[in-house]
Amino acid sequence: MTAAKPHPPPRPADDLPEAAGRLLERLRSEGRRVHAITNAAAQVLTANLLLAAGGTPSLTIAVDEIVAFTGRADALLVNLGTLDNERRASLAWAIATARAHGKPWVLDPVFVDASPARLALARLCLAGSPAILRCNRSEFAALAGEEAAPQALSAFANARRVVVALTGPVDQVTDGSRFVAIANGHPLMTRVTAMGCAATALVAAFAAIEPDPWRAAACALMVVGIAGEIAGEVAQGPGSFVAAFLDSLHAMEASDLRRRARLS
Amino acid sequence: MTAAKPHPPPRPADDLPEAAGRLLERLRSEGRRVHAITNAAAQVLTANLLLAAGGTPSLTIAVDEIVAFTGRADALLVNLGTLDNERRASLAWAIATARAHGKPWVLDPVFVDASPARLALARLCLAGSPAILRCNRSEFAALAGEEAAPQALSAFANARRVVVALTGPVDQVTDGSRFVAIANGHPLMTRVTAMGCAATALVAAFAAIEPDPWRAAACALMVVGIAGEIAGEVAQGPGSFVAAFLDSLHAMEASDLRRRARLS
Amino acid sequence: MTAAKPHPPPRPADDLPEAAGRLLERLRSEGRRVHAITNAAAQVLTANLLLAAGGTPSLTIAVDEIVAFTGRADALLVNLGTLDNERRASLAWAIATARAHGKPWVLDPVFVDASPARLALARLCLAGSPAILRCNRSEFAALAGEEAAPQALSAFANARRVVVALTGPVDQVTDGSRFVAIANGHPLMTRVTAMGCAATALVAAFAAIEPDPWRAAACALMVVGIAGEIAGEVAQGPGSFVAAFLDSLHAMEASDLRRRARLS
Repeated sequence: MTAAKPHPPPRPADDLPEAAGRLLERLRSEGRRVHAITNAAAQVLTANLLLAAGGTPSLTIAVDEIVAFTGRADALLVNLGTLDNERRASLAWAIATARAHGKPWVLDPVFVDASPARLALARLCLAGSPAILRCNRSEFAALAGEEAAPQALSAFANARRVVVALTGPVDQVTDGSRFVAIANGHPLMTRVTAMGCAATALVAAFAAIEPDPWRAAACALMVVGIAGEIAGEVAQGPGSFVAAFLDSLHAMEASDLRRRARLS
Repeated sequence: MTAAKPHPPPRPADDLPEAAGRLLERLRSEGRRVHAITNAAAQVLTANLLLAAGGTPSLTIAVDEIVAFTGRADALLVNLGTLDNERRASLAWAIATARAHGKPWVLDPVFVDASPARLALARLCLAGSPAILRCNRSEFAALAGEEAAPQALSAFANARRVVVALTGPVDQVTDGSRFVAIANGHPLMTRVTAMGCAATALVAAFAAIEPDPWRAAACALMVVGIAGEIAGEVAQGPGSFVAAFLDSLHAMEASDLRRRARLS
Repeated sequence: MTAAKPHPPPRPADDLPEAAGRLLERLRSEGRRVHAITNAAAQVLTANLLLAAGGTPSLTIAVDEIVAFTGRADALLVNLGTLDNERRASLAWAIATARAHGKPWVLDPVFVDASPARLALARLCLAGSPAILRCNRSEFAALAGEEAAPQALSAFANARRVVVALTGPVDQVTDGSRFVAIANGHPLMTRVTAMGCAATALVAAFAAIEPDPWRAAACALMVVGIAGEIAGEVAQGPGSFVAAFLDSLHAMEASDLRRRARLS
């Protein structure tokens, strides 16, 4: 890969909470369609998260239809969590369609650290110029060949010209020149399947509105983290957490974002 | 298509709420199995809706098994929302099996307006004589080639000898000679994925009991709309709405139907 | 099959509630990964049940990846509920991988009574020496060719050298020499899709910790039954039951197990 930079990129004291409020407001009033090729366990939560936030999902994976569906969507999400033959054939056509139409697409290389076949495919996908790469530490390490330190994220973002959105207890988003750490969230988010996969769909929806993918990714992860925090305050456990999360996302107001954002 | 009729069919001041209560009572006491070839995002909610209403789902899509599963079901639901190769191969055999056994089947041409391949397949399915076609306005327009006005629904129902059950803020059900509009429901139903797909499974379950498919479809959509209304009164948002919807369907009494039905 | 024994095996007045508490504690503190090849309607609940109990799921069904994923898991669950071509190809490799690594695997022959193709496949799977067979009465009868009486379960377990975990209003678990009946549970568990399928994932997770598969299976079914009982006391219906079930599993304490276990 490229050599790590001596310092991480600057951390702008930013207007991200206000920007996130405006993006949520526009998604609710104008709508956006996200086509999601995603894993079987993530499809329902992904669709329900988009609907709760004001967007519209479509989810087909059929190779005969993927060009038509991607062509009428405003953004594309490619999640590698279930690589059956149908999805494998469809995702290359979906990426090509998004690029041909100039629409943003987001890559979520789920479990890329668990299988060599998947790692090879994820690298081919990266060559298709996603606007944003959303992954966790182990997935980043597998893709980049080095630990997920801020400098490494920044070097990778610069070299691949992609926004890296690394999720974990503290999310980190960088485009190589700007960097933000988002400390919102709740531990129950790790006890519900596909929360990260579904969150990436909001990243794609915001990228369909906001032309700066760094701001789109940071705002989406902040909104998801804050919805999780609010849900964690009322949930009795991981079962009731899911409903509370979707409810709080649906009801979220700009003041929640301003008051709760923990950025650095 | 055929010429539109000068007037829509009559709107019988009907005993539909009582009929719906009896159908629900019979489903709970006698049970019915619905085999559903449905899209991946709808499978869980479809199964849980059937179980909450007293029915039994089966969901396999494997071509080697579809004849055995459809043959022992009481009704078939074909939803075109995920047209992978396996489902595409299976649905023709499932329809043939339902017809051979004289069992009712229901077609849900999801997103048929979004892809030419899907529209062509939906037309082939329609030629297999479903008892009921459940769709929304855009899907009807794509299939029929004209706007979803009451006269057009009626003409289509007459020409194809199918009950048309059009869902939206007000549902409309016609067999060409009878027509009912159902104004029950709640806006949160559009913020949960696959609510319409799952509702169609109750249409199929009722069609397995009630030999008149117009009454079966109208009663099922009324029950679903009223369950949605009750849920909307207690839910905090789209997340808690799903659980509240299934709970209210499970607990629904004949008196809820009589008191809340808004038919015209 | 083999001749039925004259008497069922002994019913040890056992320390199962204490053992179940220790297994749950170890799963929460040490974690275990279960790879589940399971049906489409069961994937989300299976993953969420494992996460609520402290485990980690992986769910891929892709034949190119199944060896890598099964190889890094601590146990394997094979559920026959959706036998599409991809799953059919993958499950043989998954079973071979689990055996090669000496990891326990659990067979759930869903609906094996409904299709001859599935019955033939289930018999082939049984020849791959699962540690535990989890099924209901009709599935057992189809597999064994006789009614699911305690003697028949015991004879089958002895002949096949497999623990039989038969679920129903009262669960029965035998390895041919030991037998326990577990009367915990709640009627709403039958009104939620895939509860039995998901429960089997906890059987697999416990089998990854406890080398005695009879104890692992009995403890897991007891934990699930008691979580269901607690949930049934607070749920308003089958919709709210699912969340309450996951919440009570997540919060379960050893004292709940001691106080509520109904074993014989």
